[in-house]
Amino acid sequence: MYLAQTLRRSAQLQGDRLALVEGDYRLSWSAFEDRVARLAGGLAARGVAPGDRVAMVSHNSARYVEFFYACFWAGAVAVPLNTRWAGPELAYALEDSGTKVVCADGDHAPRVEALREACGLTHCLFADAGLAPEGWESFDTVAEAPRLADQGAGKDDLACLFYTGGTTGRSKGVMLSHNNILANSLTAMLNMDIRDDSVHLHVSPMFHVAGGARIFSTTLAGGRHVVIPRFEPGPFLKTLEAEGVTITIIVPTMLARLVREPALSTTNLSALKLLTYGASPMPEALLREAMAKLPGVRFLQSYGMTELSPVATVLTPEYHAFEGPKAGKTASAGQPAYNADVVVLGPDDSPVPRGQIGEICVRGPMVMQGYWQQPELTAEALRGGYMHTGDAGYFDEDGFLFIVDRLKDMIVSGGENVYSAEVEDALYSHPTVQECAVIGIPSEQWGEAVHAVVVRKAGQDVSEADLVAHCKARIAGFKVPRSISFSEDELPKSGPGKILKTDLRAPFWAGRDRAVN
Amino acid sequence: MYLAQTLRRSAQLQGDRLALVEGDYRLSWSAFEDRVARLAGGLAARGVAPGDRVAMVSHNSARYVEFFYACFWAGAVAVPLNTRWAGPELAYALEDSGTKVVCADGDHAPRVEALREACGLTHCLFADAGLAPEGWESFDTVAEAPRLADQGAGKDDLACLFYTGGTTGRSKGVMLSHNNILANSLTAMLNMDIRDDSVHLHVSPMFHVAGGARIFSTTLAGGRHVVIPRFEPGPFLKTLEAEGVTITIIVPTMLARLVREPALSTTNLSALKLLTYGASPMPEALLREAMAKLPGVRFLQSYGMTELSPVATVLTPEYHAFEGPKAGKTASAGQPAYNADVVVLGPDDSPVPRGQIGEICVRGPMVMQGYWQQPELTAEALRGGYMHTGDAGYFDEDGFLFIVDRLKDMIVSGGENVYSAEVEDALYSHPTVQECAVIGIPSEQWGEAVHAVVVRKAGQDVSEADLVAHCKARIAGFKVPRSISFSEDELPKSGPGKILKTDLRAPFWAGRDRAVN
Repeated sequence: MYLAQTLRRSAQLQGDRLALVEGDYRLSWSAFEDRVARLAGGLAARGVAPGDRVAMVSHNSARYVEFFYACFWAGAVAVPLNTRWAGPELAYALEDSGTKVVCADGDHAPRVEALREACGLTHCLFADAGLAPEGWESFDTVAEAPRLADQGAGKDDLACLFYTGGTTGRSKGVMLSHNNILANSLTAMLNMDIRDDSVHLHVSPMFHVAGGARIFSTTLAGGRHVVIPRFEPGPFLKTLEAEGVTITIIVPTMLARLVREPALSTTNLSALKLLTYGASPMPEALLREAMAKLPGVRFLQSYGMTELSPVATVLTPEYHAFEGPKAGKTASAGQPAYNADVVVLGPDDSPVPRGQIGEICVRGPMVMQGYWQQPELTAEALRGGYMHTGDAGYFDEDGFLFIVDRLKDMIVSGGENVYSAEVEDALYSHPTVQECAVIGIPSEQWGEAVHAVVVRKAGQDVSEADLVAHCKARIAGFKVPRSISFSEDELPKSGPGKILKTDLRAPFWAGRDRAVN
Repeated sequence: MYLAQTLRRSAQLQGDRLALVEGDYRLSWSAFEDRVARLAGGLAARGVAPGDRVAMVSHNSARYVEFFYACFWAGAVAVPLNTRWAGPELAYALEDSGTKVVCADGDHAPRVEALREACGLTHCLFADAGLAPEGWESFDTVAEAPRLADQGAGKDDLACLFYTGGTTGRSKGVMLSHNNILANSLTAMLNMDIRDDSVHLHVSPMFHVAGGARIFSTTLAGGRHVVIPRFEPGPFLKTLEAEGVTITIIVPTMLARLVREPALSTTNLSALKLLTYGASPMPEALLREAMAKLPGVRFLQSYGMTELSPVATVLTPEYHAFEGPKAGKTASAGQPAYNADVVVLGPDDSPVPRGQIGEICVRGPMVMQGYWQQPELTAEALRGGYMHTGDAGYFDEDGFLFIVDRLKDMIVSGGENVYSAEVEDALYSHPTVQECAVIGIPSEQWGEAVHAVVVRKAGQDVSEADLVAHCKARIAGFKVPRSISFSEDELPKSGPGKILKTDLRAPFWAGRDRAVN
């Protein structure tokens, strides 16, 4: 299949309908298709040949959506880069991918400009409103080039390089093919009922595959793209109402901010049908609160990773229940997506019996082609034909997958395995806890000791002893934090909103080795 | 993706639920999975290795469904053969495919037995109730072998060889891969809402890909398979009611018999949600009658061919309307399926403008791998990356595909192109016409003349002159049949119910050449 063709198909079927919205910028499917063909022509005129990489460093924007399809149309590989990266991380990804043409918005152009010579960039495109800085071309002017013929990239051709967070060593370029992305798009349509009457708000960062994938499924379905640059509760709610958004994807940290937003109760969300979330476990207390405050909205959880384009399992809305025959699954990651072969393997890569914990491994058409220029890492990750996620989990008797933790986040304390998520859930159930993260820190006595970093809600106070007592009432003693530190600042997060535990652990482990980081 | 895995997934998620029903034979997903693994073991014990072909000649049956999955599980290639074929046609397909292991039901075992030596068959499996004939093994006994491990066939591995009808020269083995079939299954689920609560009646012949494909999509969705051996209106209706069937696929000739069945009005069809049809155009008069007599049922048309696994376009239920803004499309084949790139090309393989007639060509993940051992035919059919369907059609301004006729069925009369379907539609609108077929016959004056073969409804009479006058009131003079012959018998049909125009033409063209046959 051919990702540019999904755009052409929607333009063919419904050229006059609204396709792409960002504020006052509103394109029909025909106009969207024409702009993409021209932008692809502009890229080709700047030397971009099939297989070449083209990068984007930007907040979410309509231009970002156009960038993806212009790359597909020209047969090039889209390289969306993390906006939170500092110069050296950006430089690494640009050099690793061999990217010579880069697009950036106003907030990120200076960071790219600083790397222009070092990275040998040949063309820098200013993908924002206003005048392009010196030495930059306007993205919009490039998009006025004569139309390029669709170069026909598809099937196993590379469509995107998504660089993963780099929480474990240096970051890796995950190679996703047209077929990989199409496979995920079709199951997304099935599970989320994304159709031509869907209006999708793209608020999760497009440089992360969870956000990017929704662009691809919405185009395939012929739905409508609505874009806002980033998540802020006020503008987010305003856009939901003004554009009649029917579906969006957020991460739990966004939802935590949303439920505290006063405007929530006065916003008309009657169009919103489905709120999907993923990227990290949802504390049950937060889910209950969100469901209570959004009574007309259904919730759906996806679990996956960049290497899986990204979805492996789905917890459908009907299992977002706290009572009745379908209750008891909200803490699970759901069931395997239709095209996913999900298994739990032991250390020897043989399946463990149902109910036992092992490494979650996935096979299917959504599994990446590999890590860019990393054949050894690729072979290791894909050994036996299965993507090894690095996540620990188990299947219950109903075939629901429970993720107990990232393998690397598991704390081994006094010979017992402690899964951070369980401890965090206990802490989150305390009314004063705004955010928390549980990590292993060095301990003479236990090897690792359970430590919690807690952010209290504004104006609330709670002592370490109070929280420890609260946990003792809920989880086994060996899981209760041995120590708690309080942070006045929000916890550090990666682009998609995952708490960066590596950063939290670093001061404790300085000068020491930890088996898994 | 891996078709055996779709079975394992459904068994993993809902092992205790009912999966496969044929009369009193009722298997849960776990039992279905176990039987398939054992049958695969039995095949392997008889020398079937990955890539080997295994054939089935049988009416529809639960064993037929098991046969498909045992082949996939063992990594073998399923070769479902047309039950209407005579000995020489069967022999050709068995030899062409190099099949050594054949399954057959009681009605077809003698025909296979007669070919055993000539075709060098090593194992014949009796896939029916009762004692196996001498020299045959019982399919059910073979299915008691120890379980084989899933051999992991998938992706571009060959899953099925479907032999096409052979209406144009000798029949060809269409090579469909696991990925081809999965691509069609996912869009079938999307378009027909096939889910785990679907109950699918398999009544269209499983040796045709239209019937076979529904087995694959229903397994992927975890729905329920209900099987009856063949279409008879009475048992068909009884099964719909007794099993709570929600969806089935039939061809227009079956529907024509169904609407005349007295039991239709007394059968409880409250469970039936969707009636899908394809294989040949539906006369509007018949569609109106069927929709009137089945008021709670929605209709969906698929258009495609074996080489497309098989669906290219879909006319969704909302466009089965004779009034309102969505009316006017019932004569179309609908819109391209989500993963289909459907174009209309001229004789030079370049696209024709919208609204103009050309050859319908299709690209996408559902396009066959090729014709078995026919590289030249394959290259010709797939030139430019598009499957050339041999059908003539055009897109209207709303992106709906109208099929004017099989290219080979088009009649060129006096320099004018006459499309049989249009003439047939005019004839079908006459109340006495039960069945008809319009063909070109030799004419000194016109090159070809338009000729109609008509079957009148029981007890009804109508003259040639009456029908000609009826047509003259409806279509241009050059399209009106120059001659009409009446048949007392049902018109000859291929397995999937297409009228065999080749047979009708044969007596007229004996000893002559026709440019397209």
